[in-house]
Amino acid sequence: LHRIKASGLKLRFCTNETQATRENFVKKLQGMGFDISVAEVTAPAPAACRILKERSLRPHLLVHNDLVPEFAEIDKANPNCVVIGDAAENFTYANLNEAFRVLIGMEKPVLISLGRGRYYKETDGLKLDVGAYMKALEYACDVQAEVVGKPAEKFFESALAEMGVPAQQAIMIGDDIVNDVGGAQRCGMRAVQVRTGKYRPCDENHPHVKPDAYVNNLAEAVDVILQQL
Amino acid sequence: LHRIKASGLKLRFCTNETQATRENFVKKLQGMGFDISVAEVTAPAPAACRILKERSLRPHLLVHNDLVPEFAEIDKANPNCVVIGDAAENFTYANLNEAFRVLIGMEKPVLISLGRGRYYKETDGLKLDVGAYMKALEYACDVQAEVVGKPAEKFFESALAEMGVPAQQAIMIGDDIVNDVGGAQRCGMRAVQVRTGKYRPCDENHPHVKPDAYVNNLAEAVDVILQQL
Repeated sequence: LHRIKASGLKLRFCTNETQATRENFVKKLQGMGFDISVAEVTAPAPAACRILKERSLRPHLLVHNDLVPEFAEIDKANPNCVVIGDAAENFTYANLNEAFRVLIGMEKPVLISLGRGRYYKETDGLKLDVGAYMKALEYACDVQAEVVGKPAEKFFESALAEMGVPAQQAIMIGDDIVNDVGGAQRCGMRAVQVRTGKYRPCDENHPHVKPDAYVNNLAEAVDVILQQL
Repeated sequence: LHRIKASGLKLRFCTNETQATRENFVKKLQGMGFDISVAEVTAPAPAACRILKERSLRPHLLVHNDLVPEFAEIDKANPNCVVIGDAAENFTYANLNEAFRVLIGMEKPVLISLGRGRYYKETDGLKLDVGAYMKALEYACDVQAEVVGKPAEKFFESALAEMGVPAQQAIMIGDDIVNDVGGAQRCGMRAVQVRTGKYRPCDENHPHVKPDAYVNNLAEAVDVILQQL
């Protein structure tokens, strides 16, 4: 990251993290030695807040407790939509029924989902991600959720707008073949897959998504990008 | 019911109830004055048990506590499939993750769902039904559930087989336009919708399903059927 910043290239961190505010997300990465600040992060919750404000929507939140501060400035009285994130322990039977009742009580239900992930791994095992609960509410209410976060085009577009860089001049570096690589390419960006984290060898045979390049780690991605400047 | 039984017509009760054993379901209806016995009931759990036995499947159960006795004779050690019913309070975050892990750990996940209802009403409000949680697991595991219960054809076929009556000679009486009327008609039965219970006037404009007749209540259905003998 130091080398990219020193080169004068513009940089943006695009995350689907919805279990923590950007502040806490950044603190965690800083603690791991990353040169990152809150202003450099594009995340689903602030993107959702922009949509809520633009359309005068008052959300009922079904999100992780640690994410709630991101919605501090949003009017939540008398809700006219539901925002669902990876609520983890907050995905209780009672909370799901409550979110459902808000939606089914609306003439045209509005469901905004902070991502569409199927599952993820934690130290104590695999967990259902927000996408699974989104599907449950979509089916029960016969509605299609609006997904905020990768791989939604709008999400990448807002990251590009924040940098002031056209898609053709931007490169996405990510470990997720669908959400990172596929999403960025659909926006007209090039995308590099790193063979770390979520990467699995079978990704290289993905039926729809083909990265513009592979690298073994982030440092190698930086090498490749700086060499081609 | 007395009049139907006295006429010599064969009778079968087809229910999607998965929050109680047939024994308790029948007791409840007997208490309300219905002439009904356990042997006359076709319900999803015993239908699922037949499938489990036929295919040597050992289920991980995500069902209501009160339904567990229906699976008493089924081997549940080292599960190789998941059976999901309307688990109600048992739809906890931990239980959903556990069922998900059983499925995702299988080479070809097998998910059997006791119904595909979207929601239902209880005295304390609307509740998400088994279909919503089925969709969550389907999405997370990229699998399609096998649905047992109305409106599945197999379910009606087993009720017909239990009576020894061909579909063309059977009439379904029900309040649910899709699960009762539509499901029975797809099996070649005629179907009457009663204008009680779940019935809503807008059902009469249903885009796909048209009952063979409407009646205002069960007694009227019996009148109509006996008149045509």
